[in-house]
Amino acid sequence: MRGIVNEDLVDLTSETAADLELVAATPSSALGSTRDKPDRKYCLEIFRVLQAHGIDCFFYIGGNDSADTVRIISEAAGTAGYPLRCIHIPKTIDNDLTVNDHTPGFPSAARFVVQAFMGINLDNYSLPGVYIGVVMGRNAGFLTAAAALAKKFPDDGPHAIYMPERVFDMDGFLADVKGSMDRYGRCVAAVSEGITDRQNVPIAEGLSKQLEKDAHGNIQLGGGALADYLTRVVKDRLGYKRVRGDTFGYVQRSFAGCVSDVDQREAREAGHKAVQYAMSGDHSGSVTIHRTGSYAVDYKLSPLEDIAAKTRKMPDDFIAGSGTHVTEAFHRYLEPLLGTALPQVHRLRSPAVPKLLKPE
Amino acid sequence: MRGIVNEDLVDLTSETAADLELVAATPSSALGSTRDKPDRKYCLEIFRVLQAHGIDCFFYIGGNDSADTVRIISEAAGTAGYPLRCIHIPKTIDNDLTVNDHTPGFPSAARFVVQAFMGINLDNYSLPGVYIGVVMGRNAGFLTAAAALAKKFPDDGPHAIYMPERVFDMDGFLADVKGSMDRYGRCVAAVSEGITDRQNVPIAEGLSKQLEKDAHGNIQLGGGALADYLTRVVKDRLGYKRVRGDTFGYVQRSFAGCVSDVDQREAREAGHKAVQYAMSGDHSGSVTIHRTGSYAVDYKLSPLEDIAAKTRKMPDDFIAGSGTHVTEAFHRYLEPLLGTALPQVHRLRSPAVPKLLKPE
Repeated sequence: MRGIVNEDLVDLTSETAADLELVAATPSSALGSTRDKPDRKYCLEIFRVLQAHGIDCFFYIGGNDSADTVRIISEAAGTAGYPLRCIHIPKTIDNDLTVNDHTPGFPSAARFVVQAFMGINLDNYSLPGVYIGVVMGRNAGFLTAAAALAKKFPDDGPHAIYMPERVFDMDGFLADVKGSMDRYGRCVAAVSEGITDRQNVPIAEGLSKQLEKDAHGNIQLGGGALADYLTRVVKDRLGYKRVRGDTFGYVQRSFAGCVSDVDQREAREAGHKAVQYAMSGDHSGSVTIHRTGSYAVDYKLSPLEDIAAKTRKMPDDFIAGSGTHVTEAFHRYLEPLLGTALPQVHRLRSPAVPKLLKPE
Repeated sequence: MRGIVNEDLVDLTSETAADLELVAATPSSALGSTRDKPDRKYCLEIFRVLQAHGIDCFFYIGGNDSADTVRIISEAAGTAGYPLRCIHIPKTIDNDLTVNDHTPGFPSAARFVVQAFMGINLDNYSLPGVYIGVVMGRNAGFLTAAAALAKKFPDDGPHAIYMPERVFDMDGFLADVKGSMDRYGRCVAAVSEGITDRQNVPIAEGLSKQLEKDAHGNIQLGGGALADYLTRVVKDRLGYKRVRGDTFGYVQRSFAGCVSDVDQREAREAGHKAVQYAMSGDHSGSVTIHRTGSYAVDYKLSPLEDIAAKTRKMPDDFIAGSGTHVTEAFHRYLEPLLGTALPQVHRLRSPAVPKLLKPE
C-alpha cells in the first residue's frame, strides 16, 4: 500500500512460472509489508496513483488490520466515485479473523510451535526442570494452544497452556508449575505473549519500560521480558534450581523449511479465489475459508465489515475447563491443518534392571 | 552417569530395531542427561554399581565436560584397579571439541540457525529495521557463524556476525548497524550468547543480576537479557524505530524435524565406531571425527586427555578480517555438513513500472 502511495509499482506480468514457484515456497511477504494505516488523504493519494496507471482492482493480503485498510479504501473509493474492486486475502499466523475457519499462515506457524515443543519436551525430559516458552498471539491463543499437539505420552509437556482468552493469575500459574513438578518432576508451560491480568492489562505491559506502539495502536510485546519475568518468579517463589524460559519471537513466523503442505495449498487457493471473485463478480470483499468436511474447505467472498478490525478468539469449546489446556475439539480442529509428514518422536522402552545393591 | 550412581539401569538388549529407529530419529538424549561432575567418592560409587552388574565397558556421550568425566572415571578405575574400558562419544551443538573436524549435533543445530536466519532475513526485508538474533555457543562461535549460510543475495542478512573469538566492542557494533542501515535500509545481526568485552568478561554476565552456575562452573547465559539489552542500546543511541531482538534459546538445540541427514548418519556411525573400539581394542579414549575428503570423514580413537575439558574455537581462517563475518573457508567447511534438501528461498524479479506522476 505504501508502494502505491510512493508509486513504487512492479510489473508482475514479467514473472516466470519457475520464479513464482520458488517465491511461493518462500516464507514472508515477497511484495513487502507496512504498518501504515490509511486516512482520507492517504486514500486520495492511492486513487491518484491507481488512476494514472489504469488500475481498477486492489488485492491486499493480511490480517484484520489489513482487512480494515481494504474496507477504508473501498469506502473512500465509493465516496470519491473511483471505480475500484477491493479484495482482501486472509493471512495471519494469529488465526484471529472472524468468519474464517482458519487463516493461511497459521497452520505453518502452528507446525513450528508443535515441532518446537516436541523438542523442548524431550530436552526437559532429559534434563528435568521448569521450562516456559512464550509464543506469539496478542489477542488470540490459537498459536500458543498449538503446543498441545506436541504431547504424545501421558507425562509429556506442555503441562499447562496460558492463553489470552483466560485471565492470567500468578498464584494459579505457580500452583500449576508446582503440581507438575510434584507429579512428573518436571514442567513445560506454553504462554501466550498476550496474557492479561484481571484488569485486562497485558502482563508484558508492566514489564516493558519503554512501550512502543505501532500506528494501529498495538503494543509491542516482543523481547524476552515476559519469559524472563516468569522464570524469575518461579525461581524466587518456588525455589527450583533449573528454570528456563524462551521467547519464540520472530523465528516462529518465518522459519524456512517448516511448512504445512495443507497451509501452502490453501494459501495459493485463497489467492486463486480472490482473482476469480475479482474477474467474475461485481463487489469488494474478503476471501474467507470455511471447513466443509473432515478435512475439506471451501471459500466465499464475505463483506469486508464482517472481518475488518474484528478479532476472533479461541472458542470456549477449544479451552479445557481448567483454563490451562485445550480440549479434544481443538485437537480435531488443528490436526488436519498441520499437514503431512509431521516429525515423530519416540522413547526407549527398555525395562529397568533389578537393583542388586539397593533392592526395592 | 547419575543413573549408574543411583543404580537406575535399563536393559537396552530388550529394545526392538523398530523402536531404536524411532528413537534414532528423535532429538535430545533418550537416556537422560546430568550436570553432575564426578569426584573420587562419586567414582567409587560408580565402580561399586558397575561391579555388581558385571559391567566392564562405559560409553558416555557428550561434549568436553563429558569427555573430562570419562577421563576422571577412567583414571579412577586405573587407580582403583577396576578393569573398565571408557569410551567417550562426541556430541555437542557447540562444535567446540579439539581434535575433531566437527561434532555430532552441531550440523543439525547449524541447519536450524541457517533456516531461522533465512526466514528472519526475509521478514526483515519485508518490514525493514534492525534485527538481532542471539545464538547459543558459550565459548565458540561456530553455531552463530552458521547464520552466514542463510545469505543468498548480496544485500541479504546477516549483515554482521559477533563471535566470542573476537572482542565485542559496543561502538564498533553500533557503527556496523548504522553502516548496514545506511547502505541497505535494514540490518540483521547474529550475536553469540558468549560475546565478551576487552577484559574477557561476557557481556551477558553484567546483565543477569542473579547469576547461576552449574556444577562445571559455567555461567548460565540463557534468558532474553542480552538480546533485549542490545536492542535497547541500538534504539537509544541510533534512534531507529523498528529494532527487534530474539534469543534462539532451547528451541535451536532440540527442534524436531530440522535435521541434517549427514549429521544423523555420522552420529550413528560415531556410536558404531565406539562399539568397535570397545570390542576390538584394549584402551579407553574418545571417538574423534576427521575429514578425509570433500566430503568424507573417518574416525579414530583419540586419547581422552586430548579432548577432555579443552575448548576448540573458530580458527582464524574462518573469521573475516573485519572480525564480524566469516570467510569462504568457513562456507566450504560448513556447507557439506548441513545435509541435503536445504530449503531454498527466492525473491520476485519484477521490473519497476515507470513512474507517471513523479517521473525520476
